Amino acid sequence: MEIKNKYVAIKSNINGAPEESDFEIKVENVSLIVEPESKEVIVKNLFLSIDPYQINRMKSQSSSQAAISFAAAIVPGDAIDTYGVGRVLVSHRPDFKKDDLVAGLLTWGEYTRVKEGSLLNKLEILGFPLSYHVGVFGFSGLAAYGGFFDVCKPKPGEKVFVSAASGSIGNLVGQYAKLLGCYVVGSAGSQEKVKFLKETLGFDDAFNYKQETDLKSALKRCFPQGIDVYFDNVGGKMLEAAVANMNSFGRVAVCGVISEYTNASTRAAPEMLDIVYKRITIQGFLAADLMKVYADFLSKTVEYLQAGKLKAIEDVSQGVESIPSAFIGLFRGDNIGKKIVKVADE
Amino acid sequence: MEIKNKYVAIKSNINGAPEESDFEIKVENVSLIVEPESKEVIVKNLFLSIDPYQINRMKSQSSSQAAISFAAAIVPGDAIDTYGVGRVLVSHRPDFKKDDLVAGLLTWGEYTRVKEGSLLNKLEILGFPLSYHVGVFGFSGLAAYGGFFDVCKPKPGEKVFVSAASGSIGNLVGQYAKLLGCYVVGSAGSQEKVKFLKETLGFDDAFNYKQETDLKSALKRCFPQGIDVYFDNVGGKMLEAAVANMNSFGRVAVCGVISEYTNASTRAAPEMLDIVYKRITIQGFLAADLMKVYADFLSKTVEYLQAGKLKAIEDVSQGVESIPSAFIGLFRGDNIGKKIVKVADE
Repeated sequence: MEIKNKYVAIKSNINGAPEESDFEIKVENVSLIVEPESKEVIVKNLFLSIDPYQINRMKSQSSSQAAISFAAAIVPGDAIDTYGVGRVLVSHRPDFKKDDLVAGLLTWGEYTRVKEGSLLNKLEILGFPLSYHVGVFGFSGLAAYGGFFDVCKPKPGEKVFVSAASGSIGNLVGQYAKLLGCYVVGSAGSQEKVKFLKETLGFDDAFNYKQETDLKSALKRCFPQGIDVYFDNVGGKMLEAAVANMNSFGRVAVCGVISEYTNASTRAAPEMLDIVYKRITIQGFLAADLMKVYADFLSKTVEYLQAGKLKAIEDVSQGVESIPSAFIGLFRGDNIGKKIVKVADE
Repeated sequence: MEIKNKYVAIKSNINGAPEESDFEIKVENVSLIVEPESKEVIVKNLFLSIDPYQINRMKSQSSSQAAISFAAAIVPGDAIDTYGVGRVLVSHRPDFKKDDLVAGLLTWGEYTRVKEGSLLNKLEILGFPLSYHVGVFGFSGLAAYGGFFDVCKPKPGEKVFVSAASGSIGNLVGQYAKLLGCYVVGSAGSQEKVKFLKETLGFDDAFNYKQETDLKSALKRCFPQGIDVYFDNVGGKMLEAAVANMNSFGRVAVCGVISEYTNASTRAAPEMLDIVYKRITIQGFLAADLMKVYADFLSKTVEYLQAGKLKAIEDVSQGVESIPSAFIGLFRGDNIGKKIVKVADE
């Protein structure tokens, strides 16, 4: 028995900002026959996470990425793996039965043959929209929670700056920081987003970086008492400006550097004298290293959501065909909140 | 009663590399009368520490320095404070009596009136040359020991890179790292220094950065298995090259950035993607924050010195008149080991 699987692939390696013409929609036949000893599970994809870091897998690989499995090069023509939520179609494994809802490493397509050893878990927490398992309960949530609490080690009352603050991770960092009792300022790329951060998410302040001629002055204005924690999603000039405005013993958690992903000539050159004299720590991290805080992250996040103290902000597109534009839009700042593609109804 | 005090001052602020003409030798009359209630102590200076960071106090001040007392601006014409060792000439305080040997904040001159509250301690460990208290037992030693063990958190067998490795702090970092059982490579600016590091200090390898056309390749050659710990004394291109060659979870301790002190256009722009994917930490630190490891540092260092396992490398000039050239020479790489000026015989 076979089904048709529509999926998205890159035509060739992408250097620079991605465009529609870099992608193609392909169709393949997928056999629904699974040899029990293969331990494969066939999943019908429902919701897929759309993440900026994937662009790094689409270009020529750096040595630092080569060492990391989920940063492995994406091969033109092949299916592209991504975190997502789906429903089990075929399984001979005792731990997954037909119709189970699962979250794990799926693909930019309608169906995924999940190999043994690949990330796949049954959904444990129910009662929330399924899409939450891709965003706020997924790696975006874990990166925000773990990156903020475990890497930045914030204290109530500290001054926290988040860039790309209306993005999938940034908006959660800001909300967690507010819940801790920090003073929180976010940067974003439009007036609509600035308004959203202040009025909907309760940030203390926010600014549109595209309207600022000098980022150092913008941060000076927003942080008259200096920055204690900077959660960096963008890199480049914003990182330099944040370092210039940091207080002694300030901490920078580098979650991503989206301004540098599509333009390798954009490189942050923070003032090292500041880093020495102000004893600043700059630390790169990956959500995958933060599993140690996962249980704490999940229980707190469920509690906050149930109490209405945390908002899961999502931006959902429909259908496999929308994946390329959803992805491209990340680099144009089209999304507010977590970018998700809904592939099929539950 | 008065004595003549010869001391060194800057004529005006220094921007760029210091030159002899930036300095002047001045003479003042110092009264030997101390009002007991002032709690001042008059010290005859014996050995003075000559440190590169002082150049930052001689130029226009950055906001990061303004917050730190010992980084306060040096005023043209005024005495310049520095760590040193001396002998008490006049004291009415019960904790210091005439002829006590002391270490603390003295001046680039023959005598210092040490004010109440300023750093001053009686020498506790005797049996070593007095100059050791300026170098290996002073802030250079503490920066090396604390910066390496407390900031870098090295493990035996890890691969350690030290820049300015024949300098006052670098040579000690390399020696401590060898004593821990690390693989240690240093960079320096001459063949003589490279030979010294390998043959006298037992570094596993060393290279002359001035003879390398590509620092990334040089580090690749010296670290086929990558760098776990980089003790940064120079900043600039060397920091970029080190980050490019670091292993996952690598740590960079930024002790100083001498390549950036006299040329503000030299700025390190490390590849942030490497910092994220390899989860690298870059941390600035100051020796003054490391007092928590002081007791441990001192006992270990005394033990290593007594056992002949650690060498105190010094480069001593004679007399107050030699201070400007001693200081200028730091930026030319003239010294091997700790640069010290001997002002007077004990």
